[in-house]
Amino acid sequence: MAGKNLLYAQSGGVTPVINASAAALIETARAHRSDLGRVYAARDGILGVLQERLIDTGQLSKSDLTRLAQTPGGVFGSCRYKLKGLDESAREYQRLIEVFKAHNIGYFFYNGGNDSADTALKISEMARQQNVDLQCIAVPKTIDNDLAVTDNCPGFGSVAKYVAVSVMEASLDVMSMASTSTKVFILEVMGRHAGWIAAAGGLAAREKGDPPQIILFPEVPFEPERFIAAVRRSVETQGYCSIVVSEGARTADGRFLAESDSKDAFGHAQLGGVAPRIAELVKGEAGYKCHWAVSDYLQRSARHIASATDLEHARAVGEAAVKLALDGQSGVMPVIRRNSDQPYRWSVEAADLKRIANREKHLPKKYISRDGFGITPSARAYLEPLIRGEAYPSYGRDGLPQFLRPELSLIERKLPDFEV
Amino acid sequence: MAGKNLLYAQSGGVTPVINASAAALIETARAHRSDLGRVYAARDGILGVLQERLIDTGQLSKSDLTRLAQTPGGVFGSCRYKLKGLDESAREYQRLIEVFKAHNIGYFFYNGGNDSADTALKISEMARQQNVDLQCIAVPKTIDNDLAVTDNCPGFGSVAKYVAVSVMEASLDVMSMASTSTKVFILEVMGRHAGWIAAAGGLAAREKGDPPQIILFPEVPFEPERFIAAVRRSVETQGYCSIVVSEGARTADGRFLAESDSKDAFGHAQLGGVAPRIAELVKGEAGYKCHWAVSDYLQRSARHIASATDLEHARAVGEAAVKLALDGQSGVMPVIRRNSDQPYRWSVEAADLKRIANREKHLPKKYISRDGFGITPSARAYLEPLIRGEAYPSYGRDGLPQFLRPELSLIERKLPDFEV
Repeated sequence: MAGKNLLYAQSGGVTPVINASAAALIETARAHRSDLGRVYAARDGILGVLQERLIDTGQLSKSDLTRLAQTPGGVFGSCRYKLKGLDESAREYQRLIEVFKAHNIGYFFYNGGNDSADTALKISEMARQQNVDLQCIAVPKTIDNDLAVTDNCPGFGSVAKYVAVSVMEASLDVMSMASTSTKVFILEVMGRHAGWIAAAGGLAAREKGDPPQIILFPEVPFEPERFIAAVRRSVETQGYCSIVVSEGARTADGRFLAESDSKDAFGHAQLGGVAPRIAELVKGEAGYKCHWAVSDYLQRSARHIASATDLEHARAVGEAAVKLALDGQSGVMPVIRRNSDQPYRWSVEAADLKRIANREKHLPKKYISRDGFGITPSARAYLEPLIRGEAYPSYGRDGLPQFLRPELSLIERKLPDFEV
Repeated sequence: MAGKNLLYAQSGGVTPVINASAAALIETARAHRSDLGRVYAARDGILGVLQERLIDTGQLSKSDLTRLAQTPGGVFGSCRYKLKGLDESAREYQRLIEVFKAHNIGYFFYNGGNDSADTALKISEMARQQNVDLQCIAVPKTIDNDLAVTDNCPGFGSVAKYVAVSVMEASLDVMSMASTSTKVFILEVMGRHAGWIAAAGGLAAREKGDPPQIILFPEVPFEPERFIAAVRRSVETQGYCSIVVSEGARTADGRFLAESDSKDAFGHAQLGGVAPRIAELVKGEAGYKCHWAVSDYLQRSARHIASATDLEHARAVGEAAVKLALDGQSGVMPVIRRNSDQPYRWSVEAADLKRIANREKHLPKKYISRDGFGITPSARAYLEPLIRGEAYPSYGRDGLPQFLRPELSLIERKLPDFEV
């Protein structure tokens, strides 16, 4: 007799490879169908669990799953909806337990970052307290690379590759134009609190003097005079200057260079638009013609230039999550452990969610060069293996990727409505 | 005895495949070395010719040329420096003739857009008037796709592919997030005067209702109320809205939505930054959370997602240019002729520069859908063949493209200095 059902949900900002984790998880569960029940997925993350909007992934054929692993975004929908503490959000937690019971769900997989690890931990604790037969496993995902314990986060490697390749390409462009036209190019990248993605831009600079000549990290207080002096130095010696700026770049008093009024559902300030401000500053202070790009969602959905290593990680954690479930574990996350840099070797192991939830992995100081504008050899040793290999999606005869956009029907509801 | 020398120069904004034209031109000239002399390239376009800064491309090995064809930007440097009429710029034209004579140059190849076609035409006329033994051939290149006579411009197809793929990917991202977070995504693309690149974004919408739901063309006067109504309609029916906006989008009175003070060396207004303005408008009028990206140089240097068809075109015009030279022609440009849509068939033929110089090919009205927010089936029939096929560059073991960045020495000068 088949075992209890599985429920999978995606949470927070999506990545180019989160669907690869989903596909691997579903495939692994299918490979163990004698021990496991059906694999459900929630629409729009935890919100869909609360509202009992569930999908039976049995609708996806084997070839659908192959395409799913090549599709960016979150195919089942994600959400930014954070559950608070067990007391404060007791009603929501209780509802989750009811939904799990109603659909005979014995395994809950929550694919997300810090906030999701916290939610998964709370659900697993609640299940234990209430003697509910439920195992809860968090699956790591975040382009921010800021999860504790794991060596890196699936999703980050592909964004890192996109950023490094884009910086190389755009720098070749500005180099070509600098004699009579644009002398400064500025690329804005994500990373609200930590400069992991900005640091990845530094991978483009394989040799001394290579672009980007300047990286502006959130970790290094922005000093306009020192920055302008560095821009001038680059233009005077190399003819141009290529700059990567993190959306989280800030002044010594902690103010974001690109502050705006709006906040996201978690109360985080919504950023964007630091590149045009830097361009204005450079033009005003040094008089150089600038071009600037803001990659925004392009960087975190760029499945077309995904890192093969990142994709392997994403699949591995999806597969490991099911194996941990079969192994009887709960309140854990499969994490990536780096066994060696050269050659790069890694494995997946289980980590207790208590060590992960609500912590943040910062960019180590030793990864930033002494002048604050570049990365060090140790940063390169850490980052470089994560962007290795190209994992292209399939393209149709029309020159476009064959991403999966399935029509997915919901399973029949069994509970009354729930107001969120 | 070998014939006269060749001189090749790159002009104006570069493309992901202009170096492929250069590589093909050099390779073809090498294949005819019994009839032709050395192949020189000018540093920084026409500026390098005036200043006698020339490179002997014999420095590039066969494998260098293979990598050159995979490298974005302009490897010899480009410039924005427009020669005026023969009377007004007589001193410059005379200097060009002197440089050609000093280095025994019998063939000048100018790889650029409208302005360059005009310069090439003037040089060829001057040579004829002065009985100088010089053939002058323009090689087409521009991401703007606005050259007359040719069916399409090498460079455009790759930018079109980048934009279409990026819109598909980022739209999958916003779809995933729309239930609780971002509902509107805006991508700004290049195209100052014509909506060719914006139209390419429409390729992503393969089926009715697919993103992008809205394209803002320079050709369609921007009406805020009608636009906001369309955004609302998309969010209400599909949960989100994906928008492509051209940097050239303008109001009915001709004002660019993103006007700035700065002008480029040709006196064109320098644009950029319409996406954040659209985002502000949507947020203010409809209250939706927006994300926006400005792809800027990323789009025109994205060799990593080049169109194989575009690359073939770029190589074909480089090769044809040398063959036209061998054929004794001057004042011409090898252009791409479309022989059929289905199957897509094309060939290269010579066109008189008088038919091309200073003209502009506009986006046909019939390519824009009646509501002004999308493309028509005839636009798709035209655009789609241009993005077919993937032509990836080689990557190193470090996960980065192996672009060519050669150290190139200049040949010995023979003339006095020249002030530009």
